[in-house]
Amino acid sequence: MVDRDFAADLAGLVRARRSIRAFDPAPIDPSEIREILELAARAPSAWNLQPWRFTAVIDPTTKGELQAAAHGQPQVGSAPVVIVLASDMVDALARLDEVLPPGAPGEARAKLRANIVGFFDKLTPDRRDQWGLAQANIALGYLLILLGSRGYGSSPMLGFDADQVRSILDLPGHAQIAALVAFGRPAAPGRPSTRHAADSLIRIV
Amino acid sequence: MVDRDFAADLAGLVRARRSIRAFDPAPIDPSEIREILELAARAPSAWNLQPWRFTAVIDPTTKGELQAAAHGQPQVGSAPVVIVLASDMVDALARLDEVLPPGAPGEARAKLRANIVGFFDKLTPDRRDQWGLAQANIALGYLLILLGSRGYGSSPMLGFDADQVRSILDLPGHAQIAALVAFGRPAAPGRPSTRHAADSLIRIV
Repeated sequence: MVDRDFAADLAGLVRARRSIRAFDPAPIDPSEIREILELAARAPSAWNLQPWRFTAVIDPTTKGELQAAAHGQPQVGSAPVVIVLASDMVDALARLDEVLPPGAPGEARAKLRANIVGFFDKLTPDRRDQWGLAQANIALGYLLILLGSRGYGSSPMLGFDADQVRSILDLPGHAQIAALVAFGRPAAPGRPSTRHAADSLIRIV
Repeated sequence: MVDRDFAADLAGLVRARRSIRAFDPAPIDPSEIREILELAARAPSAWNLQPWRFTAVIDPTTKGELQAAAHGQPQVGSAPVVIVLASDMVDALARLDEVLPPGAPGEARAKLRANIVGFFDKLTPDRRDQWGLAQANIALGYLLILLGSRGYGSSPMLGFDADQVRSILDLPGHAQIAALVAFGRPAAPGRPSTRHAADSLIRIV
């Protein structure tokens, strides 16, 4: 079933989206934050590992600490919500049995499990953690579109001291911080960004 | 402006999405493929580097070669389209001047440029390429939602020999393959996947 309005609304959102750095300070209902994050957490991941972990920061003191860890970027302190998107491969692999295909016969499950364990056993911890961080960015793509569909502006950020962010939020040392995402109702339009010509990014063979 | 229908359609898609591995073999119009990829390429990236490069494979011979490179996974050969999502940080950095903020004063542009170059100069080529691969997955999140909004089923895959994929598509050795994505009209429903309880992935502080 194809919903032309939905496809057109999504295309319009994607074309118009710009990073927003000035927000209406009005608080966002925690149930709304939770619903958005539950949907973002439904992004697909390799082997269904779901390594993403979301912390939504609404407490002003914690936002202030995060702002300091993010080189003082003002939107971290001024946005009503800052999402910290992390990946935790140690926890994801500890919970491997929970995410194997529920309907698969026992032998197939055991074989798949052995393949996954074997794959990660061959990686260094650093490489494993980088792998999880990359997976977390699938959920970041979901999150930015979900926020836009509800009229929120957002600015994803990579400029922060990861050790400080882990410490502020009591995240384990192996957790990778994929992004900070400030969001809220836009108080000012975003700046345009230059885009590469599509033909230089896309080919059909 | 908040469009409640759009938000509800998107939530419904995200909740219902499953990986699809059986497709109607009818070809997809190349103009439709191009439009979807142009939209996916509009995902945001750190420093606006846009390191993603998309190759849509519709040629049956090339799909057969890709299938062999993907350990024989049948949907690579049988889907009407297979997207190969790669990142190319060497090309992205060679084109850095094209993506700096167009309205910024010369001095700010020069400082930002120096910061970006300095950041990547401190990384090994491997680390730089892993960084680009992670960014490419933001566009993967976009792509999967875009496909779903148009009624397509898709299966993103990580199981392939990257050297073989690069060779088949004539991609440079430093390019990272973030995913293969088979897509088309679904010919059979996808299997359910077990999801972690939202409370174990999400917290609000």
